[in-house]
Amino acid sequence: MIKPRTPPGILELLPREQIAFQRMLDIIRRNYERFGFLPVETPVFELSDVLLTKSGGETERQVYFVQSTGTLEKREQGLPELALHFDLTVPLARYVAEHEHALTFPFRRYQMQRVYRGERAQRGRFREFYQCDIDVIGKDTLSIRHDAEVLAVIHAVFSEMGIGEFRVQLNNRKLLRGLFESMGITDGDLQAAILREVDKLDKRGPADVRDTLTGGDFGLAADTVQRILDFVAIRSVDHEDALARLETLRNEMGEHDVFQQGVDELREVLQLVRALGVPEAAYCLNLSIARGLDYYTGTVYETQLIDHPQIGSICSGGRYENLASHYSKSKLPGVGISIGLTRLFWQLREAGLVSSIEESCVQAMVALMDETQLTDALDIARLLRIGGINTEMQMESRKIAKQFQYASRAGIRFVVLAGEDELRRGVVTVKDLIREQQYEVTREELADTLRVELEQARALSDW
Amino acid sequence: MIKPRTPPGILELLPREQIAFQRMLDIIRRNYERFGFLPVETPVFELSDVLLTKSGGETERQVYFVQSTGTLEKREQGLPELALHFDLTVPLARYVAEHEHALTFPFRRYQMQRVYRGERAQRGRFREFYQCDIDVIGKDTLSIRHDAEVLAVIHAVFSEMGIGEFRVQLNNRKLLRGLFESMGITDGDLQAAILREVDKLDKRGPADVRDTLTGGDFGLAADTVQRILDFVAIRSVDHEDALARLETLRNEMGEHDVFQQGVDELREVLQLVRALGVPEAAYCLNLSIARGLDYYTGTVYETQLIDHPQIGSICSGGRYENLASHYSKSKLPGVGISIGLTRLFWQLREAGLVSSIEESCVQAMVALMDETQLTDALDIARLLRIGGINTEMQMESRKIAKQFQYASRAGIRFVVLAGEDELRRGVVTVKDLIREQQYEVTREELADTLRVELEQARALSDW
Repeated sequence: MIKPRTPPGILELLPREQIAFQRMLDIIRRNYERFGFLPVETPVFELSDVLLTKSGGETERQVYFVQSTGTLEKREQGLPELALHFDLTVPLARYVAEHEHALTFPFRRYQMQRVYRGERAQRGRFREFYQCDIDVIGKDTLSIRHDAEVLAVIHAVFSEMGIGEFRVQLNNRKLLRGLFESMGITDGDLQAAILREVDKLDKRGPADVRDTLTGGDFGLAADTVQRILDFVAIRSVDHEDALARLETLRNEMGEHDVFQQGVDELREVLQLVRALGVPEAAYCLNLSIARGLDYYTGTVYETQLIDHPQIGSICSGGRYENLASHYSKSKLPGVGISIGLTRLFWQLREAGLVSSIEESCVQAMVALMDETQLTDALDIARLLRIGGINTEMQMESRKIAKQFQYASRAGIRFVVLAGEDELRRGVVTVKDLIREQQYEVTREELADTLRVELEQARALSDW
Repeated sequence: MIKPRTPPGILELLPREQIAFQRMLDIIRRNYERFGFLPVETPVFELSDVLLTKSGGETERQVYFVQSTGTLEKREQGLPELALHFDLTVPLARYVAEHEHALTFPFRRYQMQRVYRGERAQRGRFREFYQCDIDVIGKDTLSIRHDAEVLAVIHAVFSEMGIGEFRVQLNNRKLLRGLFESMGITDGDLQAAILREVDKLDKRGPADVRDTLTGGDFGLAADTVQRILDFVAIRSVDHEDALARLETLRNEMGEHDVFQQGVDELREVLQLVRALGVPEAAYCLNLSIARGLDYYTGTVYETQLIDHPQIGSICSGGRYENLASHYSKSKLPGVGISIGLTRLFWQLREAGLVSSIEESCVQAMVALMDETQLTDALDIARLLRIGGINTEMQMESRKIAKQFQYASRAGIRFVVLAGEDELRRGVVTVKDLIREQQYEVTREELADTLRVELEQARALSDW
């Protein structure tokens, strides 16, 4: 006998939790499709030489390699032929480059798959986790207007998810780049190192960060540091304020091309976001947002739950210059976002925001009171299913109290009974375990009745 | 520059194909849920010692092992710690045993994930493929009634999928076992070897198979072989015929316990299948069905497309005695089926049964005729999306003919236009590219109008 156990770093869910997780996946997918994105799925493994074009780095050290028994036995030197994908961006680059001539640009794709990283085992860190991505990829150019639409997608997803108020923090990398360049800090690595220190503001406080940046490693002038700290502290309170702050910055900064371009882009994004009907409370400028990666070159997004800032960004992304430079000579600029759903789900559960008493995806249970009523019970289950109601059937008769207990624990809303008396009168009894009501309907009206009840509940919860 | 390419043995789909594939996945899931099954998802890799409890065999030779960079560098002897799952049954056994006390039995789960096998590279053989499984797992016992319900699920799935007429071939392993035992062939391996020869009937013809079974390797008596060949040739033509044939067999066979039990079980399944409303044409007895695996002990199913028998079984499964004997002392009998969707999709595509002109999941496109109309176009797209219509927005104005061409090629049904004249009159023009119609509606009525049209189309295709 072998002890059944899951590998470390895996979030495996019980069915009730899986239902809640699946609902979140469905909401994300529905909204991605609502905005006209097309589904793509790539294999879980890629050829190692294709996947690992950029050698070295933290990512490669976390890669899982895959070997069949045959190649394992040969114990060859060098990297195994296959590796599990560690994100969905590199596979997207490979996909777009490989199928470039069969795709239409701008290419709008969504992709929701699990990815793999050999993270150090740690609470809340997962080695297998869902990423739910959208990207819009242009050929040669891509209008800034897509950057606004992507923000509207974030808003649509998290509005429907109903996990509390959220705000998309918006910035443009050209502002920070322009600011640094205007102060003579042109080296990209140095810019990145400074931003990493700035990121510690919340944890260590301004005095400490200021000391580091003026100290030996960086040696920046005190007024340079102050200017950086003042800049990254900027947040807008509403739409007009955001536009006004950009106007002020433009005037202060004078004729710096990169900076001015960033201001123009941000302003256009803000205006289109409003035209797309995104409420003002759902977005703001946050000039500290840089998104660690060198990858992003324009618009960047992070998304915060207002009542749970400790969760960090629940959806991030931005604009990049060229998706697939390793695979294609074509210039493929893009903009995209990613939701790390496994981590988000885990955090929501930790914060008590995933309700464990959520209704099952099973909506009705047909009870079986007496063996002689089996055929009728089967027919009732059949009518319910044809009528679009997810229905479980009790296949063996047992104490009716046990059957109710089962339905209640399983989160099934309706229990349908048809005893001798009901069968004679051509009706069934419905017990609604949520509204704690009981009523009789004819067998023919049963499915429609329950469907109306379920739709009312859905409309109420949307409200 | 690295040539972008997919590993061998992978079916990667273009977006239009992915939409068709996703629709099939959705139909399977919807029907699995309709019958009250609960979702489960297990990690793509399991601990090798947990996954590979039965050592040796074809399966293990096809296993993919997984190693992080760290363990790869150590080049340790022995098997790597992790391996990709090669089916969903072993992970189910591990899941049920690991979470036994948190589950309610009978436990009804569905699971739709990709699995991995290091198959020899060959046309139509895939190393990564979807399995879409349901299983009902009992504790200690499980009523035969679930075997009937599982057949009703198969019927529901393939009725909705609309890939042509199909028939579930039904048998019970106890019949073949009883037949063999009654003739003194009690060795399970010998029984299996005989059935493998019998399986070649279609390819090699009865004379050839008869020669093999009476020849040196098997040395069976000629009348024994004839009895086996007569037996496995039995097919029923309708429900009454199936029951009558079982009755005849029962009488011919006399008091053989295992055989009689098989007859009783098959009869009960047949009766319940009818009570569940499955039409007679959708199932039949086929006493040759054995399902290679020793695993199955009672009911077995295979499913054939009537017009495409060369595709083989599109959905198979059966009843087994004990799911998790390697992981748990509990006796966990079950019944289940599996749809290998990747292979089915590929075969349907080869047979020209997956329509490449299928409609996109994008239902409407808002055209942009003039830059000054951008804000209105964004608002129209917003209203469509709020109204539940999947909508793509043309973000940059270009020749209207180009925009129509794009929508048409992409399989988008509705193009929505609002030029100067329409905007003044408060209406939009809808071009229906499928019905080749054009009409005007107010902006407020737009989404409802399109939704009604889409629902009509859906109702027609269901018809």
